[in-house]
Amino acid sequence: PGTRLPNVGTTIFTVMSALAAEKNAVNLGQGFPDFHCDPALTEAVTAAMQAGHNQYPPMPGIAALRNAIASKIEALYGRSYDPNAEITVTAGATQAIITAILALVRPGDEVIVLEPCYDSYVPNIELAGGTVVRVPLVPGSFRPDFDRIAAALTRRTRAILINTPHNPSATVWTAEEMRQLEALLAPTDVFVISDEVYEHMVFDGAAHQSAARFPSLAARSILVSSFGKTYHVTGWKVGYVAAPAALMAEFRKVHQFNVFTVNTPMQHALASYMANPAPYLELPAFYQRKRDLFAQGLARTRFKLLRSEGTYFQCVDISAVSDLNEADFCQWLTREVGVAAIPLSAFYGNGFDQRVVRFCFAKKDQTLLSALERLARL
Amino acid sequence: PGTRLPNVGTTIFTVMSALAAEKNAVNLGQGFPDFHCDPALTEAVTAAMQAGHNQYPPMPGIAALRNAIASKIEALYGRSYDPNAEITVTAGATQAIITAILALVRPGDEVIVLEPCYDSYVPNIELAGGTVVRVPLVPGSFRPDFDRIAAALTRRTRAILINTPHNPSATVWTAEEMRQLEALLAPTDVFVISDEVYEHMVFDGAAHQSAARFPSLAARSILVSSFGKTYHVTGWKVGYVAAPAALMAEFRKVHQFNVFTVNTPMQHALASYMANPAPYLELPAFYQRKRDLFAQGLARTRFKLLRSEGTYFQCVDISAVSDLNEADFCQWLTREVGVAAIPLSAFYGNGFDQRVVRFCFAKKDQTLLSALERLARL
Ligand SMILES: CSCCC(=O)C(=O)O
Ligand SMILES: CSCCC(=O)C(=O)O
Repeated sequence: PGTRLPNVGTTIFTVMSALAAEKNAVNLGQGFPDFHCDPALTEAVTAAMQAGHNQYPPMPGIAALRNAIASKIEALYGRSYDPNAEITVTAGATQAIITAILALVRPGDEVIVLEPCYDSYVPNIELAGGTVVRVPLVPGSFRPDFDRIAAALTRRTRAILINTPHNPSATVWTAEEMRQLEALLAPTDVFVISDEVYEHMVFDGAAHQSAARFPSLAARSILVSSFGKTYHVTGWKVGYVAAPAALMAEFRKVHQFNVFTVNTPMQHALASYMANPAPYLELPAFYQRKRDLFAQGLARTRFKLLRSEGTYFQCVDISAVSDLNEADFCQWLTREVGVAAIPLSAFYGNGFDQRVVRFCFAKKDQTLLSALERLARL
Repeated sequence: PGTRLPNVGTTIFTVMSALAAEKNAVNLGQGFPDFHCDPALTEAVTAAMQAGHNQYPPMPGIAALRNAIASKIEALYGRSYDPNAEITVTAGATQAIITAILALVRPGDEVIVLEPCYDSYVPNIELAGGTVVRVPLVPGSFRPDFDRIAAALTRRTRAILINTPHNPSATVWTAEEMRQLEALLAPTDVFVISDEVYEHMVFDGAAHQSAARFPSLAARSILVSSFGKTYHVTGWKVGYVAAPAALMAEFRKVHQFNVFTVNTPMQHALASYMANPAPYLELPAFYQRKRDLFAQGLARTRFKLLRSEGTYFQCVDISAVSDLNEADFCQWLTREVGVAAIPLSAFYGNGFDQRVVRFCFAKKDQTLLSALERLARL
């Protein structure tokens, strides 16, 4: 029929999950937990449905959930957002990001993405009629390269997408890096779309550096987060955005004509569940233990581990294990070894291959152990 | 920040629902039921959550639900869609429609809408960079005017949006009208986005004329429907699309980067609930009785009733009741009489005012009776 997205196939996550299922491989590819969420959360959904909360909620989300989100952001990052005008509940973070892009990006506008990046960003910008400007993170370290970002800024730059903790590299931006971005953008009108879906998974005592912590950055930013990742319910598809009122007004113009609004019973359940901060405050320790368990096992292989500072991903260099390129290696690993992984090349527009693949450790210990048993054979 | 949608404010449904709540009016504005869904449906959600169905489902939806949808379409409309390649579950019908538009409409393409139409269509087309071509339904009767549609077709026409049963007018296209559209489009490459969210609400023994029934129309159509309307769960935000494989491939390219996928437990619940066709087969009688109850009460007022052939809406001519324009009348009715309604002018780009407003009768009998009691004072 003539395509809007000539370069787009099926997302790598779907491809690898399907292959993992077909080959009965341990699926450490697509990022999702294989363990259950807190039963208190599902019980809260049941209670909401029984209370009759099954019809349209208000377009930006129910007030109780927007209030809880604003309180959390203020407690953790010290910025106060008006729950009425500055918080909107979304159908997951992916829908939040495309909505932000459609709301901000006009045909011909340039949008900077830092590669490797999540695979929806580029097609989202293309659908909005924007021009994608790709700036690589430093190969090897995956740190932001502010000289290259500065060089990419033009009069036509409308927005930059950032993501910390970073998928796929598992790096976490430092406060100093955030300040460098803040300084770089200070003389510009550039907006920031800040993908912070792994905000509650930062390890080794470091803190998540939300854009909300940096006033002049926050003033130009749409923050994006995800309940699916934080509460182990990726299938619920609920996330949120926070942004200054003028930006949020534009966001909502598009949001109301994209999904209109988001699942009512899940919103009620999340609002009551958020009253207790323990689940997200305990998340770093929970995932750090899994990271360490998995890393200890990998230490007995010839994979070279990259540092996992946050997210629930562990990247490894495959050079000492195989001569295959990343994509072929992941196919081979899934088919022949029975462990699915994601090639980092899938996060680059030009398929840049640096011999690094990503494992997800958001899995039961026994799942990680059985993957390690298979990987030990390499 | 510079806006992508200069003509867009807050949707009329949100505005009128907020005013109704503020004024404690009976809300017959926004279309949603004020009664509960079948408890079997919410129990199925609880069961799905307890069974651990809380992580990402497959991108196009779970197989069981796609199979159930395909079976229903085949049973009712005689066309078989391949559940793997031709059915996708969406986060409601609104998300289905914007996704179809973003997938099909390229900058500069023309898209025909038949006014009055649902208020998301036009901004959706504008976001895709398309040019909106407005063709009015015949004023008064709200029937399609095929001469005017024919006159609107150009070499740049990419798609036409149709909607039957029709919101807001409550008309239902006849088989003859569908055949006229089919014949008109036969020599063209124009795609059809067929909004059929009220497919199970057609009255007086008539049948819904799905685009799926007309082979050469179906071959160029993306069908859109909604579980929220059919099963009284508008807040769940689950709908679906059906389309030939080549069209669906384009749809999914955008869908995967819009919402990626749709709430898992609700999908499982809907899949098991669909095994029994009774709930949607009984829906016409259920709503026809409410329509008649409401119409009988209105007969005692000076409103002139338009024919409600389908949907859960009843339109009335207000000329004999008030000199106000539609929008002011709805404000006045909400504030002073305590009944919220929706002006048809909100469904026209130029605010065309023909002294007609829309009531929603998807309400408990006692709600309808208390609205009628207030309206009787007019
Ligand atoms: C939306 S499927 C992908 C899940 C995820 O965020 C990842 O694996 O990177
Ligand atoms: C998405 S809110 C509007 C509900 C509806 O379809 C209508 O009232 O027309």
